[in-house]
Amino acid sequence: MSTQVNRSWQMTGFGLSRLERVEDKVPEPGPRELLVRTKAVSLNYKDKMIIDGTLIPDLVFPFVPTSDALGEVVAVGKEVSRFRVGQRVLGQVIADWPDGDAPPVLHKHTLGSSLSGMLSDHVVLGEDAAVLAPPSLSDVEAATLPIAALTAWFALVEATKPVPGQTLLIQGTGGVSLFALQFANAFGLRPIVTSSSDEKLERARQLGAWQVINYRTQPAWDKAARDLTEGIGVNHVLEMVGGDNARRSLHALAADGRLSIIGILGDTELSFSILPFMRNRITVQGLSVGHRRAFERMNQAIEALALKPVIDKVFGFDEVPQALKHLEKGPFGKIVITMT
Amino acid sequence: MSTQVNRSWQMTGFGLSRLERVEDKVPEPGPRELLVRTKAVSLNYKDKMIIDGTLIPDLVFPFVPTSDALGEVVAVGKEVSRFRVGQRVLGQVIADWPDGDAPPVLHKHTLGSSLSGMLSDHVVLGEDAAVLAPPSLSDVEAATLPIAALTAWFALVEATKPVPGQTLLIQGTGGVSLFALQFANAFGLRPIVTSSSDEKLERARQLGAWQVINYRTQPAWDKAARDLTEGIGVNHVLEMVGGDNARRSLHALAADGRLSIIGILGDTELSFSILPFMRNRITVQGLSVGHRRAFERMNQAIEALALKPVIDKVFGFDEVPQALKHLEKGPFGKIVITMT
Amino acid sequence: MSTQVNRSWQMTGFGLSRLERVEDKVPEPGPRELLVRTKAVSLNYKDKMIIDGTLIPDLVFPFVPTSDALGEVVAVGKEVSRFRVGQRVLGQVIADWPDGDAPPVLHKHTLGSSLSGMLSDHVVLGEDAAVLAPPSLSDVEAATLPIAALTAWFALVEATKPVPGQTLLIQGTGGVSLFALQFANAFGLRPIVTSSSDEKLERARQLGAWQVINYRTQPAWDKAARDLTEGIGVNHVLEMVGGDNARRSLHALAADGRLSIIGILGDTELSFSILPFMRNRITVQGLSVGHRRAFERMNQAIEALALKPVIDKVFGFDEVPQALKHLEKGPFGKIVITMT
Amino acid sequence: MSTQVNRSWQMTGFGLSRLERVEDKVPEPGPRELLVRTKAVSLNYKDKMIIDGTLIPDLVFPFVPTSDALGEVVAVGKEVSRFRVGQRVLGQVIADWPDGDAPPVLHKHTLGSSLSGMLSDHVVLGEDAAVLAPPSLSDVEAATLPIAALTAWFALVEATKPVPGQTLLIQGTGGVSLFALQFANAFGLRPIVTSSSDEKLERARQLGAWQVINYRTQPAWDKAARDLTEGIGVNHVLEMVGGDNARRSLHALAADGRLSIIGILGDTELSFSILPFMRNRITVQGLSVGHRRAFERMNQAIEALALKPVIDKVFGFDEVPQALKHLEKGPFGKIVITMT
Repeated sequence: MSTQVNRSWQMTGFGLSRLERVEDKVPEPGPRELLVRTKAVSLNYKDKMIIDGTLIPDLVFPFVPTSDALGEVVAVGKEVSRFRVGQRVLGQVIADWPDGDAPPVLHKHTLGSSLSGMLSDHVVLGEDAAVLAPPSLSDVEAATLPIAALTAWFALVEATKPVPGQTLLIQGTGGVSLFALQFANAFGLRPIVTSSSDEKLERARQLGAWQVINYRTQPAWDKAARDLTEGIGVNHVLEMVGGDNARRSLHALAADGRLSIIGILGDTELSFSILPFMRNRITVQGLSVGHRRAFERMNQAIEALALKPVIDKVFGFDEVPQALKHLEKGPFGKIVITMT
Repeated sequence: MSTQVNRSWQMTGFGLSRLERVEDKVPEPGPRELLVRTKAVSLNYKDKMIIDGTLIPDLVFPFVPTSDALGEVVAVGKEVSRFRVGQRVLGQVIADWPDGDAPPVLHKHTLGSSLSGMLSDHVVLGEDAAVLAPPSLSDVEAATLPIAALTAWFALVEATKPVPGQTLLIQGTGGVSLFALQFANAFGLRPIVTSSSDEKLERARQLGAWQVINYRTQPAWDKAARDLTEGIGVNHVLEMVGGDNARRSLHALAADGRLSIIGILGDTELSFSILPFMRNRITVQGLSVGHRRAFERMNQAIEALALKPVIDKVFGFDEVPQALKHLEKGPFGKIVITMT
Repeated sequence: MSTQVNRSWQMTGFGLSRLERVEDKVPEPGPRELLVRTKAVSLNYKDKMIIDGTLIPDLVFPFVPTSDALGEVVAVGKEVSRFRVGQRVLGQVIADWPDGDAPPVLHKHTLGSSLSGMLSDHVVLGEDAAVLAPPSLSDVEAATLPIAALTAWFALVEATKPVPGQTLLIQGTGGVSLFALQFANAFGLRPIVTSSSDEKLERARQLGAWQVINYRTQPAWDKAARDLTEGIGVNHVLEMVGGDNARRSLHALAADGRLSIIGILGDTELSFSILPFMRNRITVQGLSVGHRRAFERMNQAIEALALKPVIDKVFGFDEVPQALKHLEKGPFGKIVITMT
Repeated sequence: MSTQVNRSWQMTGFGLSRLERVEDKVPEPGPRELLVRTKAVSLNYKDKMIIDGTLIPDLVFPFVPTSDALGEVVAVGKEVSRFRVGQRVLGQVIADWPDGDAPPVLHKHTLGSSLSGMLSDHVVLGEDAAVLAPPSLSDVEAATLPIAALTAWFALVEATKPVPGQTLLIQGTGGVSLFALQFANAFGLRPIVTSSSDEKLERARQLGAWQVINYRTQPAWDKAARDLTEGIGVNHVLEMVGGDNARRSLHALAADGRLSIIGILGDTELSFSILPFMRNRITVQGLSVGHRRAFERMNQAIEALALKPVIDKVFGFDEVPQALKHLEKGPFGKIVITMT
């Protein structure tokens, strides 16, 4: 195996111009590790922020970015008992979080952040940090799950209990948002989707949005959301932006409502008025992906519900820079790179 | 209003022969009560057991049986604030259970049991013991909800958290079972339905059963259920029968599995072996209908999920004895009596 | 009974000067109501804010303020089944919240706010809006429970699950804070108390504070709290102030930490940085008293744990203005008015 | 290190006569393993059942029994990050259960059962299967925790939520029972202890039992428990015996009560009547020790609450057969073997 060539995209510094294709040896798995041949890698907005240098300023180079990949197990360490050669696996992004509460020091073992990422032909994963891919999904589809789908799933299903008929406001139509839309539909929630594009909103409707709001034409979208819910407010909002947007999210909430902060695309500050917050018993919770057991439960659910991830565009391994540029355009769903 | 005639079916003793049609005055609602004009009444197996004298041996006569009815509010007491005339309502069967834990002494305020039942043109309900009917359901459909649907909902959604992809074994194809089947489907559970009739199993399949087992041709249905789940066992079983059947249910369970005891059609004893029970961390829970808040949540879910109750047969007000006889035949879904 | 005189303190406008003693007839209880002879009334800071006109600007006069009182049932309506004459009861402040989620429109039925308050010899309570007082407490002690104790209890025990050994930061030494300190101790939590007074901190220590911080001499008390927890941060903070103080509270939190907002003595805005909030999976929850079932559970706990409320000072019925002035001084524990 | 001698007690067949002292080489830890020098080992009743051959009939010999030991880390594998040499550790009995749900195939990795046990001078533990011992406990005290304390903790605190003032019936005065008694006291539960010995009941009282029942003089102890709770019944029963005893436990339960099955000393069958079970919404749950996170939380609680395990008797390493015989006498608390 060691005679094979292992292609990677490596950061040698910040900026797209410092992302370079390299070739080296295929790594060897340790006793409890898996050697995985990567088939497809999906991108998240945070990958762009890491490459740009805005998210992890003290990154050590060279560094292989990205966290989400589907691969096939091609070799296993001698003590491995959870997997065998030939299985299709996905990496568990927060590698040392099996279940329950997160590990005490979180970012010690995170794929594509404190650990090396997935933009390589071969990667090594701990056997405790991988899950089986859902059999019904293609390689490209399965590659989209580790961050985007698990974040949506964790916010909707693990951190709370979805109650059919309740309303859920979903911001935008990126990867996490469309997974949230699909899960919400499956659970009988009433999803309200916001976007600045009527065309995207129309596609969201076709995917099952109960209501849509164009926040460009309706900048007071919190008011619009209240109107859509007969003045009661929305039961749950998935916050993707921060700043003033998050403040509006709080205004849009019903009594006993919940704001799950799962992304920051804008201002990193949030300010709000405490009195209605207290009177209405509002909960705000920060979330960041999820644990391995939740990932397994989600994959089981994806099979049972026959869900298919929404893919915006697929790029070849040579087109990684183009794929990253495409990410800035606000895709509708996920961007995936195939390794072939 | 008091000049109107109020028709009822009243028990003057045990047995179908002592169930008699009577006419009296329309009752007056108290300050916090609703006068409800009944439109449709659904039957439950326990109504038959009450009429036969097997469930409540010390019942005081005369007694109007049944618990489940859809009606229209025709008058309200002067302090009523939760409802207004013209609304379609359903009675909350355990009348003094608004939310959370049940009231200390349960059967003090139960419709059709410690309280008078619903087989009358007019009934009086406390305003705290009623909920709005789902607008999308007809009168006949809505009348089926108070016991059968709420029991299934409470066991699947309130007492535990449905995890899509998990398996659920449902016994039979009566009212509760078919509601459980519909809810299970909506939540992405994998329902396995048992019956002694291939024809009913075929209909269950059409309603979304993932697998079916004919317990007549496969008396070791617990073994059959294990085989269908690759030897793992079923995650949740809804027990409707008791006795040896319940013992089989426990054998069919996976580790961390749950047995919800929601009905007794057979032997009232249950015996099982403790060692595997302990090793596999099994939970057995007895359940009995549910609280008003759960009823409200369920109705909201029925709207959002566009569920339609399965009606076996509708009878006229004069056909109550025939309807009760039909109940013994093992209907597929609910039996309803219309008041007109 | 109607020949008796019923003394009250009534607001005829905002400001202490418009709080007047009046006498009228003893009220009659309705069919499901209790007539309660008040023995002791405790004050909360919000009573001062209501009297000053800062909390409910559109209050309708005349209005009897305050919410917390211990009284004896002296008559019951003819349909009352939950209480009998002679029992010592406390009013459930959010009167229509029996259990589970709060009622849809919260402030419709709140004692001393949307409903008339307790500063009268006699008050009328719905039988669903009262609980038995703990037998081991005196009238004065029991009168302190309805808001202060229940708010602390709900934040520590009902909205979350206390884990012995975890740290809890409690702000100040007012009524809610000292109940929180006593409950925290009982559950094996490690309470850290903040105050501007070394003398009060010493008394807090004697009541069981694990650590204390004087925020006057240590304005960076969030840093001090981190230091006391070996850099890990505090697991739970009870926020009483708002504004910059709440921001510091968030800084003091450990990963997976919780901020319960249960009071506002200062700035009503809260602003914080989202990124660490998300990474550390922080939860912020607004809370406002609690439901009747929680009140019953708390009273049972107070008995079992043999807790005694901390009383700062007791005033006579004629001294209500003095008692309200004393409230501004930052008492150590509760202020109570006896009706005799 | 490999020149050192490693003493063990090994089973070469079933029966006490086949338990033999042997000496071999000190084992080497793998890359993610700890070499632990054992200081104290505690016994559980199931150790006796394993040695007698009644619990695991297909055990492979030679086999080192027992599961609970306190030891010091004397060497670590090169990839170990959670522990360092010199720390005092306890083994996590169900080794591959870090948190949340149990692993799919439970008994694959259980200390002293599917894995080799602890009756050796040195043992090797995976770094994921160990926790730090509470600093305030001596070696002998800490050795008692892994099964007895964690079983009691899990049943009282993890699988449910202790509500102060609720009643808990504890059967007997063995290791698990006395831990349950101490935890119950700490949480404000009202523990009722049963035993056949008035002398042991008197000691249980001194440890904080609220009430005691001698089941020899009061064979209808379920009735006695009901009487002690004003006819309401007990909220939670910890079942240690099985068979008829478990049936009595169910009779002793209040509505919404819980029976945690955590031990089997007698008949392994349980039978009960379903109707009251269903009406009263009873829960029966089988439990078997607990996960590592619960172990860590418990140790933190033991520190915060300053709890001290009750030790019945300490034996020397040469006295293992005597210690096992003593186990049959029904000790009051734990039996421990010191390795020196």
